[in-house]
Amino acid sequence: MRVEPDMSRFETYILGDWGTTQCRLYLCRGCEKDGNFEILDEIAGKGIKQLSNPQEYFFKLCDKWLKANGAMQVYLIGMVGSNVGWQQASYLNCPVRIDTIFNNRLSFNAHNCQIHIVPGLSCTNPLKLPDTLRGEETQMIGWIVKNPTKARQLLCLPGTHTKWAHIDLGQVNSFLTSPVGELYDVINHHSVISTPDTEGYWHQPSFEEGLEVGLDKSNNILHSVFSCRTRQLLDNQPKETSASYLSGLLIGSDVRDAVNYFTDFDSVTVIGNDQVLPLYQQALKAYGIEAEVMKGQEASLSGLKAFVQIGGPHEYDVRRSG
Amino acid sequence: MRVEPDMSRFETYILGDWGTTQCRLYLCRGCEKDGNFEILDEIAGKGIKQLSNPQEYFFKLCDKWLKANGAMQVYLIGMVGSNVGWQQASYLNCPVRIDTIFNNRLSFNAHNCQIHIVPGLSCTNPLKLPDTLRGEETQMIGWIVKNPTKARQLLCLPGTHTKWAHIDLGQVNSFLTSPVGELYDVINHHSVISTPDTEGYWHQPSFEEGLEVGLDKSNNILHSVFSCRTRQLLDNQPKETSASYLSGLLIGSDVRDAVNYFTDFDSVTVIGNDQVLPLYQQALKAYGIEAEVMKGQEASLSGLKAFVQIGGPHEYDVRRSG
Repeated sequence: MRVEPDMSRFETYILGDWGTTQCRLYLCRGCEKDGNFEILDEIAGKGIKQLSNPQEYFFKLCDKWLKANGAMQVYLIGMVGSNVGWQQASYLNCPVRIDTIFNNRLSFNAHNCQIHIVPGLSCTNPLKLPDTLRGEETQMIGWIVKNPTKARQLLCLPGTHTKWAHIDLGQVNSFLTSPVGELYDVINHHSVISTPDTEGYWHQPSFEEGLEVGLDKSNNILHSVFSCRTRQLLDNQPKETSASYLSGLLIGSDVRDAVNYFTDFDSVTVIGNDQVLPLYQQALKAYGIEAEVMKGQEASLSGLKAFVQIGGPHEYDVRRSG
Repeated sequence: MRVEPDMSRFETYILGDWGTTQCRLYLCRGCEKDGNFEILDEIAGKGIKQLSNPQEYFFKLCDKWLKANGAMQVYLIGMVGSNVGWQQASYLNCPVRIDTIFNNRLSFNAHNCQIHIVPGLSCTNPLKLPDTLRGEETQMIGWIVKNPTKARQLLCLPGTHTKWAHIDLGQVNSFLTSPVGELYDVINHHSVISTPDTEGYWHQPSFEEGLEVGLDKSNNILHSVFSCRTRQLLDNQPKETSASYLSGLLIGSDVRDAVNYFTDFDSVTVIGNDQVLPLYQQALKAYGIEAEVMKGQEASLSGLKAFVQIGGPHEYDVRRSG
């Protein structure tokens, strides 16, 4: 008897990572599980904060794809689901399994397309404070689907709002936000404490000097940050070095305390871009931890594909993927 | 034999506190030691950062005083002596006695006036980091001349760059800068973490909630500050309350660690304005310390007068003033 191929596995759909400052949409076909996953086209667009009408913008952006392929399933992650996005998807409270995340997506119809938006996550973090994320779950999921049987892992996702997440066998147990990137930016650009680095300027010895101070258990960033300024005044450090020093100070302080809040982990993986990965890796190493790394783009795409595999028309259980 | 009165004690002179954002000049006569000190007139003007030619600006501002009284001695403190001021006065390294500060003033002639600028202070702070101040020494001196025999005191001067100083029998031993005011400002105005308070808005329960988190030993401000945002998202706190919460968070964290860096003190005095005094007093009380207070304006004027008494034409030794 001849088995008919399941043609639904080869239908086209749209995957999108739509954050605060940028939007990246992919026209895709197939399912990676079968080895048939294919990205047919790709569009970059504006972030949510630049838009007053995300729906109108979305259909303008995808116009040629929809004209060529007809109405499609659309899977979106990120700030598109926030209270300033297209439609608000809820926050799911941790601990939560990744299949639960996808199964709790917000779905609605627009112009005959079915739009699915992944929910954000919330938790009470290790400091007993409320915490949230939206968008970063996709990179975490991207790591999880490649490591579904790994227990007790600490993931570090450096960025504007750096996230530390404790992962255990496909489950996000809790996480913690340290707004390192945002503080770096506002202190450099809007205070007298530090001076922004000129484009492309990086001073590795200053980063390492800051790292040493930041990793030192005896101090609070609130009391060490003014040294960005005084090392220029008293030690004659050129002002161009202060951003590198500040970076070391913030990353060192972040690493030092974050790895102590999450005590119950076997290893650490840093997921990020080529600029920030080596900085966190160096900070962790200086603190005695040899971290693994995963490229941010690889994790994002892996997470987006998992959205379709798990939460899309081709349901499957992540527990069976290991 | 008839003793001639020492008329020099009744000569007029100019005292000035010339900071980054404002300038306050006083036309004075006499010496407080004799009970003859008198403020004859007062002018407010622009701060150093708004001016390209401080000398020209100074003589325009004081024109009528100089025309009426002739050339005078001028005693200035604050950022007027910084590298962006009128002329740069050095930093004196701590520990330092207050008479040493005045005796190391920068003096020069301009338009027949003798201008004296008090030096700034530098130290290696309790975190073993370089630290500086310029201007705050005047309020410290204002407190010292009223308490010359007090040993082992911790002074707290809250502001844009809050200073904590360890004082012992007329000597500044060391100090520490926590840029609480500046971080409060840049986080409120330039980040997504918090929202500026609307004019005059203050939410005491949110301040106290932030204070409790900030005073908690277990957390780093870098990891607790994002709760300004998440308490709005998850706990439905109105965004107008976030500035009060942030204030509590920063002040609590500042107090908690600063009083532990300086272990060797008998009591704490907070010197500041009516807005900030009760906040620091409450934070210290919640941490188990009943702080004394001194009004900032009283401390400033006391310090400015001491400049003339100690460093001016009427030299005397602060050790004899107790």
